[in-house]
Amino acid sequence: MKNSHALVIFSGGQDSTTCLLWALRNFDKVETLNFHYGQRHSIEQQCAEKIAKKLNVAYQEVDLSFLKELSPNALTSQNEISLEGGFKNLPSTFVIGRNALFLTVATSWGLARGIEDYVFGACQVDYSGYPDCRQSFIDSQAQTLSLATDSAVKIHTPLMNLSKAKTFQLAQELGALDLVLEETHTCYMGERSVKHEWGYGCGTCPACGLREKGYKEFSSWL
Amino acid sequence: MKNSHALVIFSGGQDSTTCLLWALRNFDKVETLNFHYGQRHSIEQQCAEKIAKKLNVAYQEVDLSFLKELSPNALTSQNEISLEGGFKNLPSTFVIGRNALFLTVATSWGLARGIEDYVFGACQVDYSGYPDCRQSFIDSQAQTLSLATDSAVKIHTPLMNLSKAKTFQLAQELGALDLVLEETHTCYMGERSVKHEWGYGCGTCPACGLREKGYKEFSSWL
Repeated sequence: MKNSHALVIFSGGQDSTTCLLWALRNFDKVETLNFHYGQRHSIEQQCAEKIAKKLNVAYQEVDLSFLKELSPNALTSQNEISLEGGFKNLPSTFVIGRNALFLTVATSWGLARGIEDYVFGACQVDYSGYPDCRQSFIDSQAQTLSLATDSAVKIHTPLMNLSKAKTFQLAQELGALDLVLEETHTCYMGERSVKHEWGYGCGTCPACGLREKGYKEFSSWL
Repeated sequence: MKNSHALVIFSGGQDSTTCLLWALRNFDKVETLNFHYGQRHSIEQQCAEKIAKKLNVAYQEVDLSFLKELSPNALTSQNEISLEGGFKNLPSTFVIGRNALFLTVATSWGLARGIEDYVFGACQVDYSGYPDCRQSFIDSQAQTLSLATDSAVKIHTPLMNLSKAKTFQLAQELGALDLVLEETHTCYMGERSVKHEWGYGCGTCPACGLREKGYKEFSSWL
């Protein structure tokens, strides 16, 4: 795509970093947008900024901390993280409509800069109860944003049907497995002092658990 | 609808106040949500709060001032208001994707409180170049938010096919024409010291012009 221009919704985690690497392979110009919404820690943002710098792409943060007031939940408060007990018994880390909000804000920001292509790390394999990670939602959201803005908004989700193990494999194919292992952040607890073969993290929270399991499966293919 | 519960996206203007009156007739319990996003003046919010108090409905403000950073435009800056020259030559008062954002935030806020019915003053008659006022967008947005949240989100738009004159007529049918004339705010300039037969306003900005024209047509039917 000549003169193609994409915006990656970028948290600094494994998934969105792999999306960024994918975008750099598929678009001429790539920018990143990071959302802060009162998470427990800002380590994820520090990682995001560092990765963007390493890859020489524009990095912009948008403060969505008003989200905290909308849907109090474990990610944004000091409540204990649990995998149940949230809205409709979804995990308590679920911010209602979070991905709809991210994509809507990203489009508002991007279209003002002439960007119609958005890259987002949603994945319906590791779905685990999040309805806003499914392809049916993503397709509907792109259609809605196109109608809202008289544009041809496209939302690319290169990880949609990949397991965590296959996401590690994609990073390897894109020549950046080391970057993913060293620089991306996943741990809910914000732990980066403990190093494992699959990266940094507490090793016990659900996010670390998924990453470890994925890496072990990926390693078994090598 | 027994035990029905609706949230009205409420600016304190003529349209959303008429929506609020409509909601009070059609739902058992009604709440209002007001968005602040760095508008030139807060007179609209003062009107909104006063109207909510008079009608004895819950009133909540959400600060979306980050919008200002996303899409600078005349409504949120000191630039001159014009009817052209914005994104895709839409009026410069257009915040890209504004209604998509409003509806997404309202749903996030409302679903956490068990609300699936939303009332929004979009109108495709006075469309004037805003793609996010059309019924096709509203239908798509409701579908997207339902998919995002595994809920049955309904977006009611009682003004969708009404001219400004018919919106005045609806307020009259709902027994609240005086409230609309006296308390609602429309003027882009925030002017409330000058009284006209159609309400308060500068009388010269595009919003006052539409309101005056609508009222004159409505009056001719009396």
